[in-house]
Amino acid sequence: MPGLVTLTTDFGRRDPYAAALEAAVLKVAPDTRVVHVSHDVPPGDIVTGAYLLEYASRVFADGTGSSPVHLGVVDPGVGSGRRILAVDCAGFFLVGPDNGLLRRALRGRTVAAVVLRETVEAAPTFQSRDIMAPAAARLAAGEGLASLGDPTEVDIDPPAPELPDHGQVTTTVAHVDGFGTVVADIRCPAAVAVKLLRISGREIQLARTFSDVPSGSLVAYRGSIGYLEVAVRDGSAASELGLNPGDGLAIVVVGGP
Amino acid sequence: MPGLVTLTTDFGRRDPYAAALEAAVLKVAPDTRVVHVSHDVPPGDIVTGAYLLEYASRVFADGTGSSPVHLGVVDPGVGSGRRILAVDCAGFFLVGPDNGLLRRALRGRTVAAVVLRETVEAAPTFQSRDIMAPAAARLAAGEGLASLGDPTEVDIDPPAPELPDHGQVTTTVAHVDGFGTVVADIRCPAAVAVKLLRISGREIQLARTFSDVPSGSLVAYRGSIGYLEVAVRDGSAASELGLNPGDGLAIVVVGGP
Amino acid sequence: MPGLVTLTTDFGRRDPYAAALEAAVLKVAPDTRVVHVSHDVPPGDIVTGAYLLEYASRVFADGTGSSPVHLGVVDPGVGSGRRILAVDCAGFFLVGPDNGLLRRALRGRTVAAVVLRETVEAAPTFQSRDIMAPAAARLAAGEGLASLGDPTEVDIDPPAPELPDHGQVTTTVAHVDGFGTVVADIRCPAAVAVKLLRISGREIQLARTFSDVPSGSLVAYRGSIGYLEVAVRDGSAASELGLNPGDGLAIVVVGGP
Repeated sequence: MPGLVTLTTDFGRRDPYAAALEAAVLKVAPDTRVVHVSHDVPPGDIVTGAYLLEYASRVFADGTGSSPVHLGVVDPGVGSGRRILAVDCAGFFLVGPDNGLLRRALRGRTVAAVVLRETVEAAPTFQSRDIMAPAAARLAAGEGLASLGDPTEVDIDPPAPELPDHGQVTTTVAHVDGFGTVVADIRCPAAVAVKLLRISGREIQLARTFSDVPSGSLVAYRGSIGYLEVAVRDGSAASELGLNPGDGLAIVVVGGP
Repeated sequence: MPGLVTLTTDFGRRDPYAAALEAAVLKVAPDTRVVHVSHDVPPGDIVTGAYLLEYASRVFADGTGSSPVHLGVVDPGVGSGRRILAVDCAGFFLVGPDNGLLRRALRGRTVAAVVLRETVEAAPTFQSRDIMAPAAARLAAGEGLASLGDPTEVDIDPPAPELPDHGQVTTTVAHVDGFGTVVADIRCPAAVAVKLLRISGREIQLARTFSDVPSGSLVAYRGSIGYLEVAVRDGSAASELGLNPGDGLAIVVVGGP
Repeated sequence: MPGLVTLTTDFGRRDPYAAALEAAVLKVAPDTRVVHVSHDVPPGDIVTGAYLLEYASRVFADGTGSSPVHLGVVDPGVGSGRRILAVDCAGFFLVGPDNGLLRRALRGRTVAAVVLRETVEAAPTFQSRDIMAPAAARLAAGEGLASLGDPTEVDIDPPAPELPDHGQVTTTVAHVDGFGTVVADIRCPAAVAVKLLRISGREIQLARTFSDVPSGSLVAYRGSIGYLEVAVRDGSAASELGLNPGDGLAIVVVGGP
C-alpha cells in the first residue's frame, strides 16, 4: 500500500512551489499519493494554517493502510533558528515548523517528536522542499521517525473545552471558512440538550444544520469535525457578527435542558 | 484497473473541504484516482455547476476501464429534504443533490437512478463527505447502483437544439468561462454552412476559431464540447455583450448557405 | 514505473479545462501521474508561463524512472499558424506552442524536436486537449519523439549570465512570485563573495535568506533554482521597487571580495 502525504501551505496556486513539494516527495517515494489540502492559507496566517492542518489530520485519520503524513508550511521564519519538527501522533504524522502551526493537530495527543536535521545543500529559502518534504516522504514510505532527527519535546495543549449545559464559556474563533461560517474553538456534543446561545450579543438557535432556520438567519450547530459552528443561512456569519480568526468569543448558554 | 471519481464543487480552494471529499473516497476505495474538476463554482450557482459537470462527463466519457463517477456538490439545501441521487448514465455515473445540478449531464440519456440513504452518523452540514463521496467511491470500485439506495425516477430534459440553417432560435447562456467566452445552449454542427449570426443586436461571423478574426473582434464557433460559443479575440465577449450565465439569448441566422 | 506529466496553463481554476487535459492524458495512458503545476498564469502571459515551466523542469529533473513530460499551455495563438512542438531535452520532455513559452526551459540544452501533426478532429480552440495532451501522454508512456511528428529545429538561447564579482550587469525580471519576490534572470553562485548590490537605485545586502535581515528590509539571495532573488522580509520587493515580469534590471556590484 503506497503512503499518503497531504500538503497545507500559504504558497498560493499561481507559483510552482506546491508542485515543487510534490516533486520532492516523489523523488524519495515515487508511489506516494499526494493530496493538496490547501495552498491558499493567507500568507503567514498560522491560526488558519493550524486549523486546516487539524482538519486534514481528522478526515484522513481513519484511512486504511499506512499512516498519513500531514505536511504544513506556513513558515515566515524559514531559514532562521526555528526548529523543524516531525511528530508521530500514533495514527498519523505531522511535519512542519515549530511555530505554532502544528499545535491544534497535536492537542490532547501522546506523541513522539524529532527535530529534522538541516543540510548544507538545502535552499535556505525553501526548506520545506529540501528538508520537510523528503522527510514526509520517508515517513509515508514506512521509515521510522528515529532515523530522521534527534528526539525532542513538544508542547501539547489540552483539547478544546466542551460546550456546557448552562452558564458561560470564553473561547476564540478557530476559523472562518469561505462561506463565512465561524468555527468556535469549543467542542459541541453530538446529542446536545442546549437550545439557545448568546454569542456577540445575539441570541442564536442551536440546531442540527443551517437548513433548520430561514434564509438570512443566524444558527449554531455541531460542525463537520465536532466544533461549534455559527452560520447565517445563505449569508456570512463572520460579516454579520464582525468576527475574524483568533478573535475572543464569549458564549452564553441561554436555554438549556 | 482502479476507478475514477471527479469532483466539482463550490467549496473554494482555501478550505479543506475538497480534501475531505478526497479522503472520504480513499477510505472506501484507496486506489481510486481523484480528479479535481473545479472547486470554484460561485457559491450556490447551480447553472455554472451543471455546465461544469456536463463538461466533465463529456471529456471523461470515452475513458478506458471502469466507468468514471462524477460527483457534483453545489448544494445550498444540504441537510434539508432534497434528495441525494446516484445515477447510472450507461458509460458514467453521476452523484449529487437533486436540485438541478445534474440536469445538463443527464440530458437526452436513458438512465437508472437511486436515492442515496441518509445515515445517522453523517454530519448534516457535510453530507457530500459522509454520504455522496462514499457512494461515489463504491460505484468507482465497481459496486452496482442497486445496493446504494432505493430506485427512483429522475426528470430527463431533451438535448439542446441545434443551430438552424436559417431563421431564429431562442436559447440561454449555458456558461461564461474565465476568458469571457459565452457558451450558448445550442449545438453547433461540426460542418456548418452558416456564415453570419446576429446575437444581442450584433452581427457576428461564424468561423472555425477566434484566430480567424482580428484582435478585438467578436466571433462565433463550435466550441470544445460542441456548443456554439461567442468570443472576442483577446477580449471578453461576456463584457462586450453584457451576458451572464442563465440569460436568455436570441440568435438570428443572417447569412446561410 | 508509470510516466509523469505536469501541466502549466493560463486556464484558471474555475473552468473544467485543466481537468480536460488530465482526461486527455488518461485516455492515452491511464496510469500516468498528472501534476498540476499552475493554472493561474495570467491569461496570455508568456513571460510568467515560461518561468513556471522552467521551474517545473528543474524540480522534477532528477526524478527516478521515466523522463517527466512538461506540458505548457499559454497559447493566445491557438488554432492559428504557430507550430506545436514536442522537445526531447535529454532527461525531460517539453510539449507546447512555439511562441516563446518553452524558451527558458530549453536554454543551454541540446535537444531534438518535432512539430506535432494537427488532426482534423481536434477542436481548433482546444488543441492542447486534442493534440498536445495526447502527445505528452505518449511520451510519458515511453513512446519515442520520432513517431509524434516531423523533425524540426528550435532556437536555443544561452543560459542566463552569472552574477559578476564586480562591475555591472543588465538583465530582466524573470518572475515576480506571490510573495512579491523579484527573480532576476541572472544566476547566483552558491558560494558568493559579493556582499552588496545596487538594484533600481537601492543598496541591497546579498545574504543567505530573508531571515538574515530585519522585517521590512530589502535583501538579495540565491533563490531556490539558483537565480538571484530580491525580497522584502515580510513585504513585497516588487511593490517596493516597482518591478514587473519582463522589466529591464541593472545590477551594480557595490561591494565585492
